Amino acid sequence: MKIVDHFIKESMCYDGSQIQPLWALDKMGIKGSSVVSWMGPMEIDPLKIIDVEDVGLEIKSDKMIHFIVEHFDCQPTNIKLCYHRQRILVMILKDELSKWGVESTRSGDDIFVGDGKLTVSIATISPTSMKIHLGVNLTSNGTPEDVETIGILETGKINESDLFKIVKKVSQSYINEIKSIETDISKTRSF
Amino acid sequence: MKIVDHFIKESMCYDGSQIQPLWALDKMGIKGSSVVSWMGPMEIDPLKIIDVEDVGLEIKSDKMIHFIVEHFDCQPTNIKLCYHRQRILVMILKDELSKWGVESTRSGDDIFVGDGKLTVSIATISPTSMKIHLGVNLTSNGTPEDVETIGILETGKINESDLFKIVKKVSQSYINEIKSIETDISKTRSF
Amino acid sequence: MKIVDHFIKESMCYDGSQIQPLWALDKMGIKGSSVVSWMGPMEIDPLKIIDVEDVGLEIKSDKMIHFIVEHFDCQPTNIKLCYHRQRILVMILKDELSKWGVESTRSGDDIFVGDGKLTVSIATISPTSMKIHLGVNLTSNGTPEDVETIGILETGKINESDLFKIVKKVSQSYINEIKSIETDISKTRSF
Amino acid sequence: MKIVDHFIKESMCYDGSQIQPLWALDKMGIKGSSVVSWMGPMEIDPLKIIDVEDVGLEIKSDKMIHFIVEHFDCQPTNIKLCYHRQRILVMILKDELSKWGVESTRSGDDIFVGDGKLTVSIATISPTSMKIHLGVNLTSNGTPEDVETIGILETGKINESDLFKIVKKVSQSYINEIKSIETDISKTRSF
Amino acid sequence: MKIVDHFIKESMCYDGSQIQPLWALDKMGIKGSSVVSWMGPMEIDPLKIIDVEDVGLEIKSDKMIHFIVEHFDCQPTNIKLCYHRQRILVMILKDELSKWGVESTRSGDDIFVGDGKLTVSIATISPTSMKIHLGVNLTSNGTPEDVETIGILETGKINESDLFKIVKKVSQSYINEIKSIETDISKTRSF
Amino acid sequence: MKIVDHFIKESMCYDGSQIQPLWALDKMGIKGSSVVSWMGPMEIDPLKIIDVEDVGLEIKSDKMIHFIVEHFDCQPTNIKLCYHRQRILVMILKDELSKWGVESTRSGDDIFVGDGKLTVSIATISPTSMKIHLGVNLTSNGTPEDVETIGILETGKINESDLFKIVKKVSQSYINEIKSIETDISKTRSF
Repeated sequence: MKIVDHFIKESMCYDGSQIQPLWALDKMGIKGSSVVSWMGPMEIDPLKIIDVEDVGLEIKSDKMIHFIVEHFDCQPTNIKLCYHRQRILVMILKDELSKWGVESTRSGDDIFVGDGKLTVSIATISPTSMKIHLGVNLTSNGTPEDVETIGILETGKINESDLFKIVKKVSQSYINEIKSIETDISKTRSF
Repeated sequence: MKIVDHFIKESMCYDGSQIQPLWALDKMGIKGSSVVSWMGPMEIDPLKIIDVEDVGLEIKSDKMIHFIVEHFDCQPTNIKLCYHRQRILVMILKDELSKWGVESTRSGDDIFVGDGKLTVSIATISPTSMKIHLGVNLTSNGTPEDVETIGILETGKINESDLFKIVKKVSQSYINEIKSIETDISKTRSF
Repeated sequence: MKIVDHFIKESMCYDGSQIQPLWALDKMGIKGSSVVSWMGPMEIDPLKIIDVEDVGLEIKSDKMIHFIVEHFDCQPTNIKLCYHRQRILVMILKDELSKWGVESTRSGDDIFVGDGKLTVSIATISPTSMKIHLGVNLTSNGTPEDVETIGILETGKINESDLFKIVKKVSQSYINEIKSIETDISKTRSF
Repeated sequence: MKIVDHFIKESMCYDGSQIQPLWALDKMGIKGSSVVSWMGPMEIDPLKIIDVEDVGLEIKSDKMIHFIVEHFDCQPTNIKLCYHRQRILVMILKDELSKWGVESTRSGDDIFVGDGKLTVSIATISPTSMKIHLGVNLTSNGTPEDVETIGILETGKINESDLFKIVKKVSQSYINEIKSIETDISKTRSF
Repeated sequence: MKIVDHFIKESMCYDGSQIQPLWALDKMGIKGSSVVSWMGPMEIDPLKIIDVEDVGLEIKSDKMIHFIVEHFDCQPTNIKLCYHRQRILVMILKDELSKWGVESTRSGDDIFVGDGKLTVSIATISPTSMKIHLGVNLTSNGTPEDVETIGILETGKINESDLFKIVKKVSQSYINEIKSIETDISKTRSF
Repeated sequence: MKIVDHFIKESMCYDGSQIQPLWALDKMGIKGSSVVSWMGPMEIDPLKIIDVEDVGLEIKSDKMIHFIVEHFDCQPTNIKLCYHRQRILVMILKDELSKWGVESTRSGDDIFVGDGKLTVSIATISPTSMKIHLGVNLTSNGTPEDVETIGILETGKINESDLFKIVKKVSQSYINEIKSIETDISKTRSF
């Protein structure tokens, strides 16, 4: 199983279109399963909100790291499996932040530093692929006023020059995790 | 979705029989999905080894914490999903250890403290349920001579009196995680 | 597995929008699997017809009991399983009517009292949930002229004041049935 | 989808071997999905008990109607779907008995006449087929002493000469039900 | 499992609408799984293109044989299984052409005679059915200028009067193949 | 998706043990999905017969090419998908033989040259992997007396020195086919 790891150098706004199936192929010619990452703001088109409980809320931030994951390896697609992968991605991010000295807590798919919400995330499926979005605030600028937020650059532990390393580490660790599961399956006796 | 959290007070040897489907119902009358935990040695009956690469190896330890997880909520059962849950369980354990000051590294389903292997784990399925075993060394006594191992009581951070709290915390966090995924599924729009 | 049983006191028209995925969460904040019931007319927006063979037909009635069922417990979703649940729901309704002295016959998902059609029903799925609608005529008023119909209030056995009891009994029996299946799965040996 | 309906004229003991996958092909050359029925005693080999909660119990009766159902149409096989089909089979039997004047109550997969248990049933799967056994007491002779049982010949409504008609009606109604679900699937719009 | 084999005598343009789920039922009243075939041009509405890599390309031909396959027998639907069936359909066509003296090569779902592309094909799914389109050029008239194409009437081996026989043979062979797989499943022991 | 292509140089008897799950890992250390091929006799241990209709028959041949395929990429495993892959493997073999001037006919998973049966094949699954065996007679020596058989060396078109090329070509074409399906999935829009 190959999973493409692609970082987009240009800034791009996460507007919710990127969670649609086949976006990476359609917009960038990336074939097969992939983890695409970039930095840029978030302002989600209300019509593209996936979480019903978020409808009517502002979901935005001026600068974030974004990860968009797409998997084609599970047919039929399975929202339950997709949310397990989302949790693994979020836990890998939390673990990576810890290596930089940023201690955080996690509740489901949300990471907090102190009382500040650091991340947003969603998973969804179409009949042929599974998708995950994970956004990590760089600063709290432009985030909704009614939510206490924090950015990783505001933790005092991580500099702008570290960001690319963190993105690469998270993407690679996630890809390796999914691959290691494939390997484990093929050596397992069943009942 | 209800998942029973059951701690067995008596010491019991993990001999590989506990990974069999319906063990918790058969031996303890526990109905439905469950996380069963206890402390005791491990000495696996060679005929009950699940990992083909472990055949012929000694897999043993004098004193461990054991978790046996069984899930009936995914029909048809799916070894891929089961290994994702195993990873989440192992990551929750790593996270919990970190709260006690024990820093560790993880490679797939193995946790290491320094160069010492702390855990063993396997996942498997039958046509009707999914099972996970996670064993955590308390000491390195009785572990195979050709593997460098460590026990959590040897880290200097955790005492015997803390063990039950850790077991409960890991079981509860895992159960809450799986439940939170159920909740997230029911608020997600698909394509 | 928890299934919410919710009765809406206000009259509401079944117009086909209620069969859409996540309707109960979106409109009423009901989280997770649910059986929602209410009384009111039916007049289905032609664009929201699920049964291709019904396209172009009038599907309406002045007063009905409506059940809308949504299940998130089967991932991936499965239209075959959903139709089995629909049949079970319809059979439970038939059984309940029999307890009130109303003898009926069933053909697939249709219940008849004498030659009069008493019910309409459909099942469908999205990639993340399974949905069922069951509508039961209270009277034959406002039903299509080219179909012989009957309402349960026209059987002479059931009064307006009994309706709520019947609705609750059907919803509860259905929920218990699905739960009892979960229980049975977890005590079953496989080959 | 073709489902063979086969009645075995000779008496045969249900000993639990008939619930094994491919039994109908192996012993009688019946290819594909089938409902096989016959009359005879039941005495289950303890090693062939499928319900873990029945282990150690006597499960026997001197004379029963037996139905053994096998389905190959669901791949991958699914114990949840199989139990839904079992419920539908049991509900069809209850409905048929009612037509003969035998009023009964149902709890899960058990039918009772008054306080007497009339039936036993189990469902199970292998990786390639789904199986159901339904046994209906003709008399209470030879049933376990610690359970109150009844046979349909003891209801005073059904004679020995009616039994074949009932068996055929139940088998045919069940087969038609499953086929009607197939038909409904192919006219259903999804989201 | 019944699969309807239906040939439409009138010419009809393949415009991409025929790949939509339930088209055969909606437009022709064909219930259940089916192989529908006809002859006519192809000019695909750009909004109905299924293959993302074809977006922006001309996909057209003046005269083709078209096959539209729809399957309801796999629930949940599975794009992977659907593409396996597409390959089998294409291989059956290649085999049939060989019987008429037309040697060809195959690469995935494309058949070539010499350097000329003979066919176009796609597979896709909805949550409830699986669909395949296979188009075979009769001539190269009206095909895109930037692709070397060929029609089976240009091979010098096949006449217009042979076409119906070929269509019927391919449809029937495909249907028999899928049915033979059903038969094989029901005689197979598993582990 | 990686699929290992491994040819065993030594002669080995196909006795039915090779169809068991994880055989390639257990006996040869081959990890993950694989196509393993070798030459040697066939004499199947009656207890290891997978096809119920073959029980009690002699299934043997003095010299054959054997292919054993194992797939871990479909979870949950699916006997229907596995038989589709078997058909594709057999069709690829038929196609390859045709390139060497050996014309054959195919009926399900059997290839015939004239009236002589050239091949035997079976597919099966465990809860975690899918397996295929395809055996091709080199000569008719040692085949059952009551079946007309033929070997590819008896066709007069293929020499002993060609065999390895044919084995490699079939294995590689099959692997490429399965990989090309993966690629096609990831560019397909669904409904």
